[in-house]
Amino acid sequence: MTETSFVVEVLPDGIKAKAKTGEALADVLVRAGVPLSLYCRQRGVCGKCAVRIVNGPLPFPAAREAALLEKRGLGPDHRLACLYTVRSDVTVEILPGSRLEKVGVLEAGPPSAAYVDPAVKRLSFTKDKPSLASPTAVADSLRDRLNAPGLVLSLAVLSKLGGAALGSSSALAAVVYDDREVLDIEPEEPDRELFGLAIDLGTTTVAAELVDLRTGAIVDRAAAVNAQSSYGADIVSRITFAFENPDNLGRLRTAALQLLNDMIGTMCRRGGVPRHRIYDVVVAGNAAMNHILCGVAVDSLALAPFHAVFSVLPPLAAAEVGFALNPQARVYIAPNVKSFVGGDITAGLVGSKFAEGPGNALFVDLGTNGEVVLKKGAELAATSTAAGPAFEGMNISCGMLAVPGAIHRAEWDNGFKCRTVDDLPPQGVCGSGLIDILSGALARGLLGRDGRITGPEKRIRLTERLALTQQDVRDIQLAVGAVRSGIRLMLKEFRLDVADLDRVLVAGAFGGSLDIANAAALGLLPDLPAGRIVFVGNASLAGARLLLVSRPSRAAAEGLAARIAHVSLATRSDFQDEFVRALEFDCYPKRPT
Amino acid sequence: MTETSFVVEVLPDGIKAKAKTGEALADVLVRAGVPLSLYCRQRGVCGKCAVRIVNGPLPFPAAREAALLEKRGLGPDHRLACLYTVRSDVTVEILPGSRLEKVGVLEAGPPSAAYVDPAVKRLSFTKDKPSLASPTAVADSLRDRLNAPGLVLSLAVLSKLGGAALGSSSALAAVVYDDREVLDIEPEEPDRELFGLAIDLGTTTVAAELVDLRTGAIVDRAAAVNAQSSYGADIVSRITFAFENPDNLGRLRTAALQLLNDMIGTMCRRGGVPRHRIYDVVVAGNAAMNHILCGVAVDSLALAPFHAVFSVLPPLAAAEVGFALNPQARVYIAPNVKSFVGGDITAGLVGSKFAEGPGNALFVDLGTNGEVVLKKGAELAATSTAAGPAFEGMNISCGMLAVPGAIHRAEWDNGFKCRTVDDLPPQGVCGSGLIDILSGALARGLLGRDGRITGPEKRIRLTERLALTQQDVRDIQLAVGAVRSGIRLMLKEFRLDVADLDRVLVAGAFGGSLDIANAAALGLLPDLPAGRIVFVGNASLAGARLLLVSRPSRAAAEGLAARIAHVSLATRSDFQDEFVRALEFDCYPKRPT
Repeated sequence: MTETSFVVEVLPDGIKAKAKTGEALADVLVRAGVPLSLYCRQRGVCGKCAVRIVNGPLPFPAAREAALLEKRGLGPDHRLACLYTVRSDVTVEILPGSRLEKVGVLEAGPPSAAYVDPAVKRLSFTKDKPSLASPTAVADSLRDRLNAPGLVLSLAVLSKLGGAALGSSSALAAVVYDDREVLDIEPEEPDRELFGLAIDLGTTTVAAELVDLRTGAIVDRAAAVNAQSSYGADIVSRITFAFENPDNLGRLRTAALQLLNDMIGTMCRRGGVPRHRIYDVVVAGNAAMNHILCGVAVDSLALAPFHAVFSVLPPLAAAEVGFALNPQARVYIAPNVKSFVGGDITAGLVGSKFAEGPGNALFVDLGTNGEVVLKKGAELAATSTAAGPAFEGMNISCGMLAVPGAIHRAEWDNGFKCRTVDDLPPQGVCGSGLIDILSGALARGLLGRDGRITGPEKRIRLTERLALTQQDVRDIQLAVGAVRSGIRLMLKEFRLDVADLDRVLVAGAFGGSLDIANAAALGLLPDLPAGRIVFVGNASLAGARLLLVSRPSRAAAEGLAARIAHVSLATRSDFQDEFVRALEFDCYPKRPT
Repeated sequence: MTETSFVVEVLPDGIKAKAKTGEALADVLVRAGVPLSLYCRQRGVCGKCAVRIVNGPLPFPAAREAALLEKRGLGPDHRLACLYTVRSDVTVEILPGSRLEKVGVLEAGPPSAAYVDPAVKRLSFTKDKPSLASPTAVADSLRDRLNAPGLVLSLAVLSKLGGAALGSSSALAAVVYDDREVLDIEPEEPDRELFGLAIDLGTTTVAAELVDLRTGAIVDRAAAVNAQSSYGADIVSRITFAFENPDNLGRLRTAALQLLNDMIGTMCRRGGVPRHRIYDVVVAGNAAMNHILCGVAVDSLALAPFHAVFSVLPPLAAAEVGFALNPQARVYIAPNVKSFVGGDITAGLVGSKFAEGPGNALFVDLGTNGEVVLKKGAELAATSTAAGPAFEGMNISCGMLAVPGAIHRAEWDNGFKCRTVDDLPPQGVCGSGLIDILSGALARGLLGRDGRITGPEKRIRLTERLALTQQDVRDIQLAVGAVRSGIRLMLKEFRLDVADLDRVLVAGAFGGSLDIANAAALGLLPDLPAGRIVFVGNASLAGARLLLVSRPSRAAAEGLAARIAHVSLATRSDFQDEFVRALEFDCYPKRPT
């Protein structure tokens, strides 16, 4: 049996694609790799996939299609690709506005991009004029209008549909989540904005971005010290605190929520964005942070063998979590890798496309937990080290987050020449600055390989007011040792040499870029040829933004989290030995011993 | 290609069924019509489908299967049918305890039964001992244990899993809803009960049953006047009240919820059932009652053309609706037929299997809305008439609900001889009593065909204290006229004669049984040979109970609701004329004119 097939020529791309009789043009274009906007999932209700039929049949459009084309100011030679059926050879031109927008995912680091395809969409529709002849319930008419028979409407949305809140206009828009749920109904207004939040909920640093979901553009950012820090600097002390007294979990939760709601308030005020226009939130955090935010008891994380309660959660309602946003907004928690490696790492891995491609690679996240993920061909494994908060400037006498005024770069030139975030007068030092200073001090002999400050003052002076103490150096030394021994043991576990690594991605909530050479001089990172180690910045936050603007990336993250094996280094017999050896500030030996 | 096939002989039924190599024994048995209990949906975790292998191979059972068999006290020749693979001819004996229980659906009326297969089930499992070697999160271990990878756990359940609430026992049970959601986790205790509620939320009468979900048995019943009645006797006045002031919707909702929670409390107290053991609720009500209970604004029901906001709802959380039960309990609202015919009717139709089989049939629900559903072959259509609350004894000077003390049957024998519910001293008259009395009065000449009381007293005396007034008769006359004209117009619309009806099911919240002959003498029901008209009692409540104990019936109800056409009789030109003619107390003419 032979099937008739036609040629679809795509302008201006110059692609020629084959199509079978009766195929939807949209399917042909997507198969040919054209990034066509299929905002309403080919239901013919959004009008975003309009193309010009340059050469080919132009059957009369249905009333709704004609109205959608007219709304975009398009002429009689335009049609919606999702409704156009190929029945002969055809030449089509893709309009610039019918293409998906592409946004960069990580600001630094390897090239990586995603098409904007958020979980939350706004679909316009015309409310049926009710008539006695057609007694269809209002919600069922809406499902018909949106070609979505299974759409779920909350009682709040139903009540809005049944009451006077929507006024008399029949032009309405539905805010739809994941093609499944209507979060809100509102009178149609052209170009009404939809916003989302990407949150990196770190043990020490909390960072957030307010994102325009229509374009993927970042409207504003904010960062702050996690307000839970007053209950303990690291995860273990917070979990212990929560375990001691049932009320303490609530205290930790409230601390995080108040801080996040304050940050959201600040960003909304600065950006002129009403809170209730935020409909989607992605949280990337480690397992303990996720549990606490959701109010899930952490006893099982406090007691050996320290298991998480959940790894993946279905999207939650913002009101249920406690966010002050549109109460129907959804909160997506980036999935944990089993019990120990958090959604912050999953987000970072997806955002940096770490798992893609051949070869061996290492992903190192320099946070309070120093996570190390190893890729050996197709194999993926992760471990977590207790670095402590030093890389985020905490517990350091003059330390601070990478916020304006923080020394984030330093160079020796007859004393330390320091640069600060936003070039403000120096207030303190953040993680990347600490690495530069220790590396410089080591090279000048101000610091011994054993971490002892050599001068009589027992201080490393930075400015008139700021200096590092011996205790500060010891804290950084422990953090470096934890990560370094983690990397070395992971390589050992998988029988790899440093030289076998094709690339190393380094992530962390540093303000500017981390100086790779200085980090290698301290032994924090392997000593590899330039270009093989890349600093990718706050990969968790960038990953959270990717999960926010690109719905397909959520399935990818869940798949990835399920694939990664967990390695417990602490049970290895050489764990203590490696850790003690890693405390020495020194480059990696060429072969791990 | 030929496939090897084997014979499975089933004892004591004596059935012989064919099976292909490798088929699960459970599948073969179900195909052969054996009502096997597959409580956990063939996941091998409940142990309820155990059979004895009388003759055939006995491969060694897996540890979990052996444990489940041992728990039921079964010997080495028993196996679970869902895990047993047919690889040769085999003879099996079905244990009595492995069969589904059958419960009657309607107490009166046509024979109808359902197998007990509730949406809420309790599945036992053994909690994995956590180990560092297997860092699977607790919730994921539970999904593994229950062979249900997609199971959704609420934050409350996760918190219970993560905290100390479950104690140290590793024998746990999950209360699972619809194979999808875990509603609760609790330490395993043998024969722990699960309860559900069936509710008939009528405009005038509210009736409820507390049901043991394991057996389908009714634990207790309660009935009361809908507390919303103080805001209006019929639906139109309540909708108008809700529409007048946004707070009034809340008043109506609270009135219904307080009443229902009181009724639940009474039944729980009497039955010794803790409220939090109730996990599932089915509500059968008309569209307005459903909207008000859910707090959905009814403006669109108040304004022409009176459209409902929703017809079908996904199951709601009990806490969201406002029921004082286990907060995670689910509430299933029986689906409305489009805008005008409620879930109470859908429930009644499913419960009475009205739509099944060939022929023409009529379903008449004598409530405040007198609904009439016509079946003409495979065609189904419904209409609603404004009968008012007289059939439920409301607005009648000595009227009352069909509760103990109500005169529910009366016969003329030198004055009216009355029988009361539970044979208590007469307190008033309920609907079935009113029909008997008016029919008797008509036959004795105490009442004219035009509804006028003939005697000088202008009363129909029942007892020393109780009598019907002229106004009472007028109210019943209007109710009868509404239903009668509804039936006649439906028959006209579908070109059917009364004699074409193969059966008529009459439903209503009467206490005992309605006397069909008396109802026909008044013209309320068609005059058909005995046996063709059957009184089925409170079909809405019975239907709600069916939906509660049999999950498959919910899909059936939704399918039925989508199939039924709605007929608006009020737009017919002969509506007024038929109504006025129907006000005459008289038998149906043999042919509608």
